[in-house]
Amino acid sequence: MTMELLAPFTAQLDLGSGQLDPTHKRIERRLMEMGDAYLEAPDADTLVYEVFNLQVPETNANILSCTTVLQPGKVGREYFMTKGHFHEIRDRAEVYVGVRGQGAMVLATEGGEHEVQWMQPGSVHYIPGGWAHRSVNVGSEPLAFYAAWIADAGHDYGSIEQRGFPVLVVEEDGAPAVVPNPRYGAA
Amino acid sequence: MTMELLAPFTAQLDLGSGQLDPTHKRIERRLMEMGDAYLEAPDADTLVYEVFNLQVPETNANILSCTTVLQPGKVGREYFMTKGHFHEIRDRAEVYVGVRGQGAMVLATEGGEHEVQWMQPGSVHYIPGGWAHRSVNVGSEPLAFYAAWIADAGHDYGSIEQRGFPVLVVEEDGAPAVVPNPRYGAA
Repeated sequence: MTMELLAPFTAQLDLGSGQLDPTHKRIERRLMEMGDAYLEAPDADTLVYEVFNLQVPETNANILSCTTVLQPGKVGREYFMTKGHFHEIRDRAEVYVGVRGQGAMVLATEGGEHEVQWMQPGSVHYIPGGWAHRSVNVGSEPLAFYAAWIADAGHDYGSIEQRGFPVLVVEEDGAPAVVPNPRYGAA
Repeated sequence: MTMELLAPFTAQLDLGSGQLDPTHKRIERRLMEMGDAYLEAPDADTLVYEVFNLQVPETNANILSCTTVLQPGKVGREYFMTKGHFHEIRDRAEVYVGVRGQGAMVLATEGGEHEVQWMQPGSVHYIPGGWAHRSVNVGSEPLAFYAAWIADAGHDYGSIEQRGFPVLVVEEDGAPAVVPNPRYGAA
């Protein structure tokens, strides 16, 4: 065997904050960067979520992973959420593990099939190929989760920016409810 | 896109016990099944570890994952440990996340390069392709961790059964110590 080997490495996931240390790349998303993700889109600098990435070569032999810390909050009745994406290579799967807080994962296929899974510490979620996924913080504390995916998968945010998800997770009488997205499919 | 889609699914990782519920396949390993893994090999029925697997099609688009619960204990000076393996497809990577207890992950290449990483709740471990890996419980409570790997990787236990790892993790003056394996490389 003559392949060149990567060096193993470690990081510490802070089970309180959800942050990874060391992190190789930190991304933050603010409300004003989220385009038309919400029905009401305030032009606000509010931090919605941070992603703490571990980086490896983006091949189908490697696994990319990160933690995401999604703040509590709402825009209108919609809870704070991630942008959501398909994988560019559509058949690539991903796994999530809940670390802190209470959330919802919204999954949808290009055909409009959809599912909502509830996230909590220790919840494990399997996102098969072909399913776009978005996380929603339905609680009052930060939602943190660990995700791992095949490193060549890539991210396709554009399809979701254009069409949205078939359903939204909104607050209704003080509790999360899954409702049809009135703008689903609109270009 | 006409590929057939898998259905998403969830499981709950019990952060106390390390068990997954539901689990698709549970494996247990007893001392007597571990061949020559330990320098002293008692013919005992003692349970060393359990693996709680989530199963998906074993392709390079999917991710297999499991939790492992490794009991505390020793055989001579050697702490209870997993068998350890390379991946059959050598370049396939794996990630671990510590859930409970205190452990050591022993990593080694076929060339004899080796590394020991310490495991604890929230520790994240990147195991690149080409690195065999074994977990060792160096604490007094069960060691539990979550692992995810590319689903076509396969397991090669035979290479480790034959050659062992270059180093052992043993108790020395009441604390874990990494020492050379006197039988390393013996057929």
